[in-house]
Amino acid sequence: MAEYGTVAIVGVGLIGGSIGLALRERKLARRIVGVGRRQNSLDAARGIGAIDHGVTSIGEGASEAQLVVVATPVDTVVERVIQAVTAAPPDALITDVGSTKENIVSMVDAALAPRRSGPRFVGSHPLAGDHRTGAQHARADMFDGCIVVVTRSAATRPAAVTEISGFWESLGASVTTMTPAKHDAALAITSHLPHVAAVALAAATPTELLRLTASGWRDTTRVAGGDPKLWQAIFTANRQRVLEAMDLLGQTLDNLREALELGDFENLAAMLEAAAKKKRERDALGD
Amino acid sequence: MAEYGTVAIVGVGLIGGSIGLALRERKLARRIVGVGRRQNSLDAARGIGAIDHGVTSIGEGASEAQLVVVATPVDTVVERVIQAVTAAPPDALITDVGSTKENIVSMVDAALAPRRSGPRFVGSHPLAGDHRTGAQHARADMFDGCIVVVTRSAATRPAAVTEISGFWESLGASVTTMTPAKHDAALAITSHLPHVAAVALAAATPTELLRLTASGWRDTTRVAGGDPKLWQAIFTANRQRVLEAMDLLGQTLDNLREALELGDFENLAAMLEAAAKKKRERDALGD
Repeated sequence: MAEYGTVAIVGVGLIGGSIGLALRERKLARRIVGVGRRQNSLDAARGIGAIDHGVTSIGEGASEAQLVVVATPVDTVVERVIQAVTAAPPDALITDVGSTKENIVSMVDAALAPRRSGPRFVGSHPLAGDHRTGAQHARADMFDGCIVVVTRSAATRPAAVTEISGFWESLGASVTTMTPAKHDAALAITSHLPHVAAVALAAATPTELLRLTASGWRDTTRVAGGDPKLWQAIFTANRQRVLEAMDLLGQTLDNLREALELGDFENLAAMLEAAAKKKRERDALGD
Repeated sequence: MAEYGTVAIVGVGLIGGSIGLALRERKLARRIVGVGRRQNSLDAARGIGAIDHGVTSIGEGASEAQLVVVATPVDTVVERVIQAVTAAPPDALITDVGSTKENIVSMVDAALAPRRSGPRFVGSHPLAGDHRTGAQHARADMFDGCIVVVTRSAATRPAAVTEISGFWESLGASVTTMTPAKHDAALAITSHLPHVAAVALAAATPTELLRLTASGWRDTTRVAGGDPKLWQAIFTANRQRVLEAMDLLGQTLDNLREALELGDFENLAAMLEAAAKKKRERDALGD
């Protein structure tokens, strides 16, 4: 794939920083500009080599970019994308990395509908990350082998999907395309629901029992250590589907509870086996 | 601590095998005898150096042991402990590693009540393990830094608690003593409930969405890959307390659901922060 001239990364945290490191390691960009609100985040990103140059203005950062990646929390993505569209050269492509897609893509599409030309937006969501935040935890191999969902809406140009897919593939990811609605319904179960379960489990555990927790508790609750503000924004953006996913979990828990309460060991065994089978099936898919 | 002459390990799986490896590495036993039902498990344990000698008869295996550790699934512990008491020398000590304690300790205490002398039993539960099973995954450092609960019932001799505690400490563990009932109530929340949550989450995830799962789902469901039979026995042995723990989780999930449904973001934020705080508190306790 052709090298980029300038890539602008708006939001130089864990994901934005990792994109910068991956671009640099793979020599895919001649210049990487970071855009952030806080000078110390920009300095940290520059310190680890994730960006060449840091600016606090999107207008300045995006002005020469062929590609702008917005990697800010989901509740700020729409505003940043529109600012990037306004600032970037007419042939630029803009994408994001938000964990929810329908709100973002529909609002951006609506805002850009009156424009007949200029930069194009395609939504992305790399299924990568960590419960830690900040560029100091960024890794050049963050997207290596990871799945990236690239969204396709009525307003999306196929050529732009191809180009953004190529971008992620050049970082080592596998791309799958779907509508924003389908993405949000799937991720409500595969990502947002695990977070809900982990949060509930951690919150339900009395502090005085924490010393009697071991690796099982720690793994099951790991994601609950993630940034509460980021997750509140994700739950809010995908509220209805998260509620539906919680009902699905609640129903499964009720079934388990009933089997245990009734001493229906056949059914209990079948549910435990079904869960273990899902784990094996997932493991068989690889990283 | 003094070296043991012969230690018998009944059940040479992940935990039994790890005890053998730890005893050997720390040179704490002159002879380690493994007792198992299947010759190939005994061969595997001997192959990795966890035992010196393997026998299929507990009568033979325990006959010269100063210490017998019963490391079989919880639904077979009572029977094995009683067999070991019958077979072992009168000054031997017997312990187990079962994940539930009240059933085991009360049944063993009742069975041994008529005896005025002979081997003594003290219940143990090392908070260690893995979702994998079998001696091939055993590790000499399995108990290094881990918490072991040693139980104290009305029938328990204080000297025996001291000796069994010393045994676990000699393997690198930190020991805490409590009643079997208190253990089971605590572990229902800190260990059995995470397993329930992981199983429900894995079971609720449609197979076709597994490709859209990433590290969050994998960590949160990790323990659901554990042996269904072992866990069915644990849930059954601690049924009432697991049901109560499930109600606690259900209530917490209901609170989260309500906050999200009502758009009560202050409350939602408070719950996410409370969970993240529990994670920080747990991390501060160390391994």
